[in-house]
Amino acid sequence: MKIAVLPGDGIGTEIVAEAVKVLRALDLGFEMEEALVGGAAYEAQGHPLPESTLKLAQQADAVLFGAVGDWKYDKLERALRPEQAILGLRKHLQLFANFRPAICYEQLTHASSLKPELVAGLDILIIRELTGDIYFGQPRGRRASPDGAFQGAPEAFDTMRYSRPEIERIAHVAFQAARKRGKKVTSVDKANVLETFQFWKDVVTEVHAQYPDVELDHMYVDNAAMQLVKAPKNFDVIVTGNMFGDILSDEAAMLTGSIGMLPSASLNDRKQGLYEPSHGSAPDIAGQGVANPLATILSAAMMLRFSLDQAEAADRIERAVKDVLAQGLRTADIHSEGTTRVGTKEMGDAVVARL
Amino acid sequence: MKIAVLPGDGIGTEIVAEAVKVLRALDLGFEMEEALVGGAAYEAQGHPLPESTLKLAQQADAVLFGAVGDWKYDKLERALRPEQAILGLRKHLQLFANFRPAICYEQLTHASSLKPELVAGLDILIIRELTGDIYFGQPRGRRASPDGAFQGAPEAFDTMRYSRPEIERIAHVAFQAARKRGKKVTSVDKANVLETFQFWKDVVTEVHAQYPDVELDHMYVDNAAMQLVKAPKNFDVIVTGNMFGDILSDEAAMLTGSIGMLPSASLNDRKQGLYEPSHGSAPDIAGQGVANPLATILSAAMMLRFSLDQAEAADRIERAVKDVLAQGLRTADIHSEGTTRVGTKEMGDAVVARL
Ligand SMILES: CC(C)[C@H](C(=O)O)[C@@H](O)C(=O)O
Ligand SMILES: CC(C)[C@H](C(=O)O)[C@@H](O)C(=O)O
Repeated sequence: MKIAVLPGDGIGTEIVAEAVKVLRALDLGFEMEEALVGGAAYEAQGHPLPESTLKLAQQADAVLFGAVGDWKYDKLERALRPEQAILGLRKHLQLFANFRPAICYEQLTHASSLKPELVAGLDILIIRELTGDIYFGQPRGRRASPDGAFQGAPEAFDTMRYSRPEIERIAHVAFQAARKRGKKVTSVDKANVLETFQFWKDVVTEVHAQYPDVELDHMYVDNAAMQLVKAPKNFDVIVTGNMFGDILSDEAAMLTGSIGMLPSASLNDRKQGLYEPSHGSAPDIAGQGVANPLATILSAAMMLRFSLDQAEAADRIERAVKDVLAQGLRTADIHSEGTTRVGTKEMGDAVVARL
Repeated sequence: MKIAVLPGDGIGTEIVAEAVKVLRALDLGFEMEEALVGGAAYEAQGHPLPESTLKLAQQADAVLFGAVGDWKYDKLERALRPEQAILGLRKHLQLFANFRPAICYEQLTHASSLKPELVAGLDILIIRELTGDIYFGQPRGRRASPDGAFQGAPEAFDTMRYSRPEIERIAHVAFQAARKRGKKVTSVDKANVLETFQFWKDVVTEVHAQYPDVELDHMYVDNAAMQLVKAPKNFDVIVTGNMFGDILSDEAAMLTGSIGMLPSASLNDRKQGLYEPSHGSAPDIAGQGVANPLATILSAAMMLRFSLDQAEAADRIERAVKDVLAQGLRTADIHSEGTTRVGTKEMGDAVVARL
């Protein structure tokens, strides 16, 4: 089994190093090969997703990804910006199913912006479709407005689209995930306005017929953005499209107060996956050794479970992370009075020690 | 001056009745004419926005709108569903500028899901473009997928689009609004993925050159959804497109904990406007006389200020609402220990008494 290790930019290199340390400590005999991605790859090789990096990712059983991006690349043309690496990997590896848990750790309840009673014990799973929707829909571009009140004026446009098989497969993923949890799926759409999401709602409803043991409800995206704030614990599994999922998964992650703790997995239908923390490259704190490596370490655990058939090793990592929190160790982002503040490396070492 | 009064469905009739009571008490000599809209209009006249209602709205200087919608219309074809009335009014009256304040009233700070220190004194203004974007873009519909991995499969699609003049006019509205407030505009986009919003960002940046006294920053929509939860008071004016604005304005409203208190205004370039509460038709509590009429009453105040040149009368209403809150009167949605619970009518009467 082979893991492609793509640290990327900003704190990416620091947090991935800790996850690699944890994987090595488990001594499972995986091959790990590192490559450049994002801004780092652009600097060295002129492209955020060089051919060689893409090939490595395609040949690997799983990709451990750090984070990409920095303000300094804002002026580059879009095709060369760091984010294109992540979009390219999703597309080329057909990673259509993105798992974004939003969990509130017992010891970190106070770190949430929300009142403790609203988030204590929170455990929801957002399943975001990741290779379709307006992210990749063609045509898109700039043109003279073809009609309407401003006909002839310059305009820009994009295409939102979902085909039946794309909706079916992500719906199956969601219902199957819900079966192993609270048995409830909320499908988020904007069927009252968009053709794409009326179709989404129709197809999800059809697929639901095969899962009579799972409850399904439908919610408009604006309402979902509100209910996440009002009563997040009412959700179990949320399934939605790429664009709405981008917004809601970040909102939900931030609600927990510990986005530095949240892993994510992006899978294709061959169990190949890309694993990365839910947070970004945080260029403002890069190189200082203060970033929280736990989201990346927990992403490595998801990788062991979903792509590498090592559920037990995954459990060990997750237990070790809980132990370290119980021990009172905290990086700056989750630090509070009465706990011990540690750096990135110390946190990684502590997890290894607890394995 | 003429006001079209469109109560709509659910609690719409109850809350609009109170706003009308307040307007009458001011005795400003406006003509008010009522008409059916939404489900109520569909039942009586077979269409959610009958010709006669649209005509009344077009001829009026302002529209006072309640709310539309009910689960029972979910099975109707889209063109006949209640929401089409509000979309139709926006489009036909060219109400491109939607003002959605998110304010946290001193006495209601505890009602927020967020910790009090994060929302105490919150006062942000979301300006949502309301007649463009993927809400109205053509083409849209269903077809066989023209290309890609699922070529030939059934798919649904929509078109996101913005032309330069549409972006320019909403940017001007935002900068001018910011001038009268905290002098800071955050333009929310998804320029890293969407052509439409790269163009949005470019044009907003250009228009900004005319407002050197106003600070402008840009934020991706996923990040905005997070920052609203993390530190909402860092915002002053947010300007964004129709779809993102739909999501973020509802998220922000719910954050305040008093969505039953939040008015909204939708304006065209002739100062004609539609004024409605930020909340919906709440069919679950309709007819019980418990709904909070204050968002609608405050919408009437916005109407006086923006469309009817009666800033002083608007101030009187807003002061009266503050007085009533200070007096301790609360409808069920904002009730808490130590305050006096009142119904819809009593609340309206209390505001009138305080004028
Ligand atoms: C970097 C960006 C293109 C990406 C997205 O929008 O999908 C990011 O926000 C994410 O959620 O992984
Ligand atoms: C009812 C619906 C079409 C509408 C919208 O999406 O604009 C509503 O959510 C709103 O924000 O006024």
